This record gives sequence, C-alpha cells and structure tokens, in this order.
Amino acid sequence: MKQSVNAINNKIYQIPSELDDTKNLEDFLERNSGKKVIVVQGLGFVGAVMALVCANSFSEDYAVIGIDLPNENTYWKIKSINEGIFPLVADDPKIDQFFQKSIEKGNLYATYDPNAYKYADIVIVDINLDVQKESNKERVLESFDVDLTGFKAAMASIGSKCKENVLILVETTVPPGTSQLVVKPIIEEHLLKRNLRTDKYRLGHSYERVMPGPEYIDSIREFPRVYSGIDDRSADDIEIFLNTIIDSKKCELTRLQNTNATEIAKVLENSYRAMNISFAIEWSRFAEEAGVDLYSIVDAIRIRKTHANLMYPGVGVGGYCLTKDPLLASWARQSFFGSNSDLKMSINSVSNNDQMPIFAYNRLLEVFGPLENKKLVFLGVSYRGDVGDTRYTPVETLLLKVKESKAQVYLHDPFISFWQELEYKVNSNIDDVLDKDPDIIIISAGHSVYKENSTLDKIMKLNPTKIFDTIGLFSNKQIKQLEKKHTISVLGRGDIK
Amino acid sequence: MKQSVNAINNKIYQIPSELDDTKNLEDFLERNSGKKVIVVQGLGFVGAVMALVCANSFSEDYAVIGIDLPNENTYWKIKSINEGIFPLVADDPKIDQFFQKSIEKGNLYATYDPNAYKYADIVIVDINLDVQKESNKERVLESFDVDLTGFKAAMASIGSKCKENVLILVETTVPPGTSQLVVKPIIEEHLLKRNLRTDKYRLGHSYERVMPGPEYIDSIREFPRVYSGIDDRSADDIEIFLNTIIDSKKCELTRLQNTNATEIAKVLENSYRAMNISFAIEWSRFAEEAGVDLYSIVDAIRIRKTHANLMYPGVGVGGYCLTKDPLLASWARQSFFGSNSDLKMSINSVSNNDQMPIFAYNRLLEVFGPLENKKLVFLGVSYRGDVGDTRYTPVETLLLKVKESKAQVYLHDPFISFWQELEYKVNSNIDDVLDKDPDIIIISAGHSVYKENSTLDKIMKLNPTKIFDTIGLFSNKQIKQLEKKHTISVLGRGDIK
Repeated sequence: MKQSVNAINNKIYQIPSELDDTKNLEDFLERNSGKKVIVVQGLGFVGAVMALVCANSFSEDYAVIGIDLPNENTYWKIKSINEGIFPLVADDPKIDQFFQKSIEKGNLYATYDPNAYKYADIVIVDINLDVQKESNKERVLESFDVDLTGFKAAMASIGSKCKENVLILVETTVPPGTSQLVVKPIIEEHLLKRNLRTDKYRLGHSYERVMPGPEYIDSIREFPRVYSGIDDRSADDIEIFLNTIIDSKKCELTRLQNTNATEIAKVLENSYRAMNISFAIEWSRFAEEAGVDLYSIVDAIRIRKTHANLMYPGVGVGGYCLTKDPLLASWARQSFFGSNSDLKMSINSVSNNDQMPIFAYNRLLEVFGPLENKKLVFLGVSYRGDVGDTRYTPVETLLLKVKESKAQVYLHDPFISFWQELEYKVNSNIDDVLDKDPDIIIISAGHSVYKENSTLDKIMKLNPTKIFDTIGLFSNKQIKQLEKKHTISVLGRGDIK
Repeated sequence: MKQSVNAINNKIYQIPSELDDTKNLEDFLERNSGKKVIVVQGLGFVGAVMALVCANSFSEDYAVIGIDLPNENTYWKIKSINEGIFPLVADDPKIDQFFQKSIEKGNLYATYDPNAYKYADIVIVDINLDVQKESNKERVLESFDVDLTGFKAAMASIGSKCKENVLILVETTVPPGTSQLVVKPIIEEHLLKRNLRTDKYRLGHSYERVMPGPEYIDSIREFPRVYSGIDDRSADDIEIFLNTIIDSKKCELTRLQNTNATEIAKVLENSYRAMNISFAIEWSRFAEEAGVDLYSIVDAIRIRKTHANLMYPGVGVGGYCLTKDPLLASWARQSFFGSNSDLKMSINSVSNNDQMPIFAYNRLLEVFGPLENKKLVFLGVSYRGDVGDTRYTPVETLLLKVKESKAQVYLHDPFISFWQELEYKVNSNIDDVLDKDPDIIIISAGHSVYKENSTLDKIMKLNPTKIFDTIGLFSNKQIKQLEKKHTISVLGRGDIK
C-alpha cells in the first residue's frame, strides 16, 4: 500500500485501494443541501486557495468540494483539508481565517472520488499542465514538448460524470486553443455517450493571477480578471459566477472575444515578464564588464512611465509559470494552429532565464575564486521573496553547481524547513548557519528579514568574509556598511573602473 | 560650387569655399558681451531645438551659437536660422515662440566656422553617430558596424580650439564608453598640443529624451534627465548647467556614477523599447493565425501596472534612435570592453523590427491578393503619429515592396510634402488621394486627423474598397462602421475563427 506524507505535520497516510468516497460526499451534500455545488479540480497552489475563496464567496453560499488524485504527492492534501489543516504554508493571515470560516460553516470538503463531479453545478479546473523541457548541463534549452495526456484524462473524468447543464471554468494555464480544441470535444463526446444534450453545458476560460505570498487571497479576490466563453451564453454565466467570488467593484472584469483570446492573454502576460527578466540578464553581464551598477541605471530609467516595467537584474526565474508558459504558447502556435513559426523571443527568454544561475555561478568563481572546501551559506532558497516555494527555484541550479565544486553548503530560509525537490533540510534559524563562520555568504532570495538591520548586525559581527549578493538585496547604505569589514560583490553591479 | 536647399522654403544657397565667419561671430559676441557662450554642435532634430532651449534658459542669459558642417544637407540650416526661419517643421507652437524670442533677444546665431569653439564656455555635443547596418532584402540584419571617424573629427574640432576650462556636455547617443575612452583622450591630446592644462576642463554626459511632436520643447525642458561626469567636479558643473535650462522642479535630475553608466542607460532605455515592440511582432503573427484581436488582449493585460509597458502591434519601428541604439550597445560591449558576448536580444529586436513591414506586406497579399495594377493609397508616411519625420520610417520598406508588385501608389501625409530619403512628392490634401478611387487604402501612420470622423465620412463615401490598417488606428466602433461598406483587415487582428 502506498503512502502519502503530510508536508505540514509529517503525518503518514496509507492510500486506500478502494476509491469510493460516496458516503462522505453524500453526508457533506446533505449537510449543505440547497447550496450550489462547486467542484475545484486540483488542490495545488491555485486550486486549494481557489476552493477557500469559493467557500467564502461574496454573494452566494456555495458547497465546495476540492478534488485531487489519490497519489503520493496529493492524497495527503485531501486528508489534511478534512482534518482541519490547510495544506499550504503562506504568509497571508487570510488563508487561515478563510479556512477556519469554511470549517465553521462546514461547506468545504476534499475528496479523491470522481463521483463528486455528478453533483457539481460548477467545475473549476485548476490542475497542472506541464511542459517537458530538455536542457543541456549549462541549462540551455534544447527542446520541449507538451504532453496533454493527463489533462485530457482530467477532462474525460469531468465529462463522464457531470450534469448536462454544468458550468466548466478552466483556470489552468493551457496551450492557447485548448478550451476550444481539447476540452469542448472531450466534454461533448462524453455527454453524447451518456445520451445527454450538448447544448446545455457552459464552458469558459478565465485565468487566475495568483501571487503566493502575503496577499495570496486578495490576488484572487481583488485582482482584475480576464474571462471568455466558448459562446456568449457561456461567457455570460462565467461573468455571473465570477461576480460572486471576486470583488468586481475593486477590480475590473474584462471579457475577451473567445477562449483562444484569454488563453493567449495569459501566456502573453507571462511571456512578457519572462522576456523582461531575460533582457535584464544580458545587460547585467554588460554592466559587470563596463563597471557600472545596473540597479541605479534601472532606477534612473524607471522614472519614465513608459519604462516602468524594466526589471532589475537577479539570479534567475523560478516558480511554476514563467519557466514554462512562453513554451506553451509557442507549442500551441505550431501544434494547434499549424504555424511554421515559433515564438522565438519567448523561447529564448525561457532559455536565458534558465541559464541565469549558471552566469551567477561563473561570476562567483570570477570574483571570489575556487570554492573547494570553502564554507558557503545560502540565505534563501525560495524562488521569490517572502514566499516558501521552491518549485523551479533558480537557487537549485546555483546550489548544485556549488556542490559540484566540493564546497560545504549551509542553507537557510525562514519559510522552508524541507526542500522537497532536492530532499534537503533547510535551517530556519539564521544564527545556526552564520555560526558556521562562512567563507562566502550568498544572498539568494529577497526575504524581507534579510534586509532588516538585525540581520546586517549579525553579519557585521562575523569575521571578515565574502558576500555575494545575487539579487541586489542590500541598499547602497547597507553595502557601504558591509564593506567596512567584508568584501561584497553584487550581481549586475560591476566594480567601478 | 555646391548647393544646399532649404527644406522649408526651397531657397537655394551656394556653399562658399571660404569658411571664415570670424567677423559675424565677433559681431554676435560683441552684441552679447558679458553673457556665457554656449556652442551647440549639430543642428539636427536635437541640436536645433537644444539651441532654442539654451537661448531661452530659466536662470542665465546665454549667448548661443549653433554650429554644423557646411555640407549640402546642413548648410541651409545655418543660413535659415540666421535668416529667421527655423529649420524644422513641428507641431509644437513653443518652437516658434522660443525662436522668435531668441531673435528679439539677438542671442542665437548659427555658423559653420569651428572658430566658434574658441569662445565657448559650454559646448553641447548633439551630432549624429550612425550605425552601418547590412541587411538582406527581407530586411534581416546580417551585420553591423560603428564608424567613429566623423565623431572623432568633431571632438578634435572642439579640442583644437576650446578654452582650457570649457565644459563639454555630450548629448549624442554614443556607444557606452565613448566619453571616457574617446572624447576624453582626444580633448586632452589637443589641449596638450596647445600647451594648455588638462585638469581644468570639464566633461560629462547627459542624454536627451527628445520626442519630436507637439511637446517637442517640453520633452527637453520638462523631462527627467540622467547625467554624469568623468569626475565629480565635472558632474557638479553639469548639474549646475542643467539646472539653468531644465525645470528641475517638475522633473528629476538623476546623477549616475560615471559616464559609462549614463551612456548605458540611454541605449538600455531604447533597447528596452525596441525589444518590447519586437515582442509584439511575434504575437501579432500568432494572433492573426489564432483568429484573435491582439489589441484587445493587450488592453486587458495592460490593466496590470507590472505590464503597462506592453506594446500594441504595428507596422514597424522608425526614427533615428530605436533602429540603431541597441546595436551601439552591443558594439561597445565588444569593442570597448572586450566582451566575447553580444547583446543578442537587443540585436534580434532591431532585426525583427526592421522586418515588420515585410510581414505587413505578406499579410497584405494574403488577405487582399495580388497588387498588380491595383491603386493603393497610403495614409501617412511618417514613422510616428502627428510628426513629420520620415527617417527610417517603416512605411518606406512597405512602400518599396508594394511598388515592386507594380501597384499604382498615392501617398498622403499632412505633415510632409516632400519625402527627402526617396525624393517622392507627398500629397497633403487627403481628398486628392481618395479621389483616385483606390482599390486598397493602407493606414500607415497614426496621425490624429485620420482618426477623426471627418476622415471616416470621406472613406464611407468611396466605392466599396479594401482597407488595410497596419497600426490599429480605428476604434472597434469605427471598424464596425467601415465594415458596412468596405472590407477591413487590421494587422495583429485575426479573423475570428
């Protein structure tokens, strides 16, 4: 029997071979009778929080069922929700508030049982859709592909159970064209198989702009939304639904012409950001060569509103979206729309961004010499400041290169105690790692706590050491102070010539 | 004897072989005795207007001498200024006001005589610095180079005449490193040759952000500025000077650490913009293939502040800056700083942008078929809306392709009567060109007048025709109206599938 371990409290669950949860589902629905039923498909970083938002909607009291597959990585989330422990650690106090409210109301339940779709008035699709990337060891992207097998199975799972008049809202970031060319035919095929009508269901796409962190909940409830339907009736119903969970007084709802348009909007949005980050890389290297500080240059340019989105240099891009969404777009252009062209700038941006930690590593060697037997402390392993999320973190690439050089490595992150992808323990007590008398301190994530003077004071108490700031964490004033005792090198900031 | 023709009033000047303007210079300086003397080197789109701004400074009454070379393209500008006709047509009423004031005050003079540098307290360098681009016939950039010969000669011309304590402000967009590595040694070499001290002159760099158009003057006087000096004293003096001509209450002055930094800032700023435009190209093609309207997608995304700089699709990039500045940067990285790497994203952006009109041409054939013997009207030949400037306009490439197809072409532009680069006449009366009963109307520049309903009414009166909007000029409402009679295709807006 397979196991699944709760990442929050390490509790071990046996995954049952019998997958019937009918009794519990029926009990839950009886307790919530009269309410519209929402099934949220996928309990990851988006789906789990989307379920909370739906369970705490503005204007309708929904019964919300979260559903995920009963495998090792996800089964524990289902159990955890039903045991009153939310399966995500986040800085946003609203997460806990909303979860507690849903427990009080008893309108949130999690299951692995696809029979849940039978009861759904609304299904929200929040499952992952991955890109398979092939890169060389310098992290240059050599090829990529998109395997829709899992996604199609998930749609079939809805189609084979759902009501004739269900509303399906796809939130997953998909290759543009997917709602029209993949979801629609699968749902209709299964409706027909069950001798049901295909003109009563509704299908639309609206992408989330979730930002894990201190405003996790508000990044769903109070953030502008783009939406569409496969037809006008679908778009109308999507709009009505979104208005029940989103504060549309505070944030605009924009309807686009069809699902292709919103699906393109999502990947375009993220490609834009990936490209801007990639752009900063080239100029970082140039700034280092020319002996100038790219941060102050970016500040000077950002004064212009037309240039306000210019990015600072950094150690790389992580997270689930920017590392793959531009590729989804290019793949769809060719696979769904038969184009002979790809989206070259977008593909190159992903590849450039993937290589950023390699540049950082090379720069580290260049300024501070060989690492063999040196003690290195990493401050921050998360891909983003003030978030505990190691998915595709650029720190991983940098860390693995450093380990190859036979350096001794100590990791700190206030938000992460266990790095799942690498199965490393991470220290959350900064004194522990600084006590190692490090040869080099690598600033590798922009957590606010690192910027505080208390952290600076701790570093100032160390023996003279080397500091490699890969993200421009410190202010100029802090750098000056650090330089009184230590040697500091900042990525994207050349030594003035 | 060579001639130079005044582009404003067609007056023909003979260029003298004797280049002594001493008498006039001395007279001018006598009339302006006691005033600090500014020599503005270069009377192009920046220098001519910079001279006006200096002659109408906020807090110091300068005597301003504009200087340019006595060749066919520039000699007329010198004469024109001294005859009371400003050598630029612009939509900004302040241009004329400022010019008239300087005539009243008698503090502006133009010359070709390098002896002017003898008298300068301040020299402002506003000459051109070109990139030599080699492209194939599909406008793919194949190679490029930067020839500094002319620029170096101009610096030598200053150095061989200037006062020991002159302040030199370089405003030209240069390959980063130029002030330090080119200007400084040339000036010092010439000072030493004349047995003068090399520790009294000041040298700095501050780039303009001039935007020809209705706010031409304010884009200098009321726009934030970035500046630097080769040393602190130079930076201090540049700051003092800038404060006399710029409204620093309204707009920030930012000092950067050295001239490399400001020179990089300038080309980075323009590379950023070129890249964002280039990015829109790829997605335009994709949008057309996927049958969606990229304009409305961009609008939906721009709601996010982090994405506000996302560009609309269009027919291409023109003007003097975005078409070459990214290449200056990459050239400098290798030539001045010995890098093995170029700035690939920036180079590719220039190449992509150069190819945009070719894409537009191909799209035109795709949607409206062969052009042979068809009558085509171009509305707008300028590279930018509401400006009369044909330098590197993308319309040129599109027009030449159309002409190759043996179409009959009629050009209209309210701001241009003669297209210097191609030596074409341009009609400034829209009725004349619409009366030709065109088969296709190409909207090729975003002049405000084209958006007005009066223009729409004129188009609606024509026989059913085809409209190819390459810049997204018309609103959705206008498009709906046009479609009642005509067939319209908009670049970046696919037919909905």
